[in-house]
Amino acid sequence: MPNPTAAMLVIGDEILSGRTRDSNLHHLAKELTGHGIRLQEARVVSDDHDAIVAAVRALSASVDHLFTSGGIGPTHDDITADAVAAAMGAAIGIRDDARAILEAHYQRTGLELNEARLRMARIPDGATLIDNPISAAPGFSLRNVHVMAGVPAIFEAMVAGVLPMLAGGDPLLSQMIDVHRGEGEIAAPLKDLAARFPDLSFGSYPYVRNGAYGTQLVVRGTDAARMDAAIVELSKLAASA
Amino acid sequence: MPNPTAAMLVIGDEILSGRTRDSNLHHLAKELTGHGIRLQEARVVSDDHDAIVAAVRALSASVDHLFTSGGIGPTHDDITADAVAAAMGAAIGIRDDARAILEAHYQRTGLELNEARLRMARIPDGATLIDNPISAAPGFSLRNVHVMAGVPAIFEAMVAGVLPMLAGGDPLLSQMIDVHRGEGEIAAPLKDLAARFPDLSFGSYPYVRNGAYGTQLVVRGTDAARMDAAIVELSKLAASA
Repeated sequence: MPNPTAAMLVIGDEILSGRTRDSNLHHLAKELTGHGIRLQEARVVSDDHDAIVAAVRALSASVDHLFTSGGIGPTHDDITADAVAAAMGAAIGIRDDARAILEAHYQRTGLELNEARLRMARIPDGATLIDNPISAAPGFSLRNVHVMAGVPAIFEAMVAGVLPMLAGGDPLLSQMIDVHRGEGEIAAPLKDLAARFPDLSFGSYPYVRNGAYGTQLVVRGTDAARMDAAIVELSKLAASA
Repeated sequence: MPNPTAAMLVIGDEILSGRTRDSNLHHLAKELTGHGIRLQEARVVSDDHDAIVAAVRALSASVDHLFTSGGIGPTHDDITADAVAAAMGAAIGIRDDARAILEAHYQRTGLELNEARLRMARIPDGATLIDNPISAAPGFSLRNVHVMAGVPAIFEAMVAGVLPMLAGGDPLLSQMIDVHRGEGEIAAPLKDLAARFPDLSFGSYPYVRNGAYGTQLVVRGTDAARMDAAIVELSKLAASA
């Protein structure tokens, strides 16, 4: 069965200004690969309504699942929920189920559920809530768009909650072999190999270690037997100096 | 003077599969901010000709400068130069100036300039070469598209070579203040402040440290006097418990 496809949209001025180094993309990429979902594209946009709407529309139409991170907190620059609702043509307002979750959380912690915090209960009509085991304010799935927090610990908890609900594909396998030769020396046989195994994908990543050139060869695919056959061929390539 | 805008396109299956954690986006974001260029969007696409062409066309048309990383090595999956040429409607072939750089490098290192390595001299017509002080194979600038290597050390060296050639804008300043209160408690006054300083941008980033909630408030802009005025107001906000 073909692997489902996904895209990620990271929302936040702080990534584009260089203030913060995003770590959610790398985490999601690993998790999706393990779940048999192929991450096809990622984008980072600023806290700008029109930019978010345009990206959500383009990406949600081109993949099976779109995951977003960032912009669902209580402050004026947290505009993701409204932008996603606009992009998907859904109405949005404070929803009772989300409000109840926030009420319970703030009662427990003794803090006030003020107007700003109540904004975190704005959820589009028809969306399913995503549990936030850390700070309560939920994410949501609206059709194929999964809206999650930007704070890495919360993002990761939400991913862990959402992924098991989504149909995966055959596991996306990868095997790696280290070749103590420059990338340019093995490029020709590697190209031939890629042509002989069109169902697999071959990557080569040069490195310098202790002053010596080397190349990491990575093969990716879903058929374990074909992968093994390719690795045997790659090993020969590593051996023939 | 308004700040020039930029976008980044990261090219590489290894980022989307989760094998590699990209670091070039964060580096470029910091460097651009320091140079007064506003990074507006970033995208990550796989080693796929059509995906690269579509992203280069869309991004190069929407910003002043597009920076790409990845896909300019000697192997079959290094297809960035040809894809950029196709996107920009330029012819491409092995260029004498690039070939001369590679010949000198491989003569010096005693390695063979074989057919695969010679692919790294494929440069679009009309492009200016970008110096690679580490492994010789050049990047290039074609109109407003700056094509650079994915290996971080080489990418960073190329950025350092290209940036001084580009007109910057007023420095993009940022100041930060730590508030020992939850984001939800300062959201309302922060929103008022943002409305009173429409020329500045205000970000708030919640954190938990030693079990206590706090918020980092960041103000960004180009007018130092206005920034100082905003920081005074933010400090009051921090003080009024």
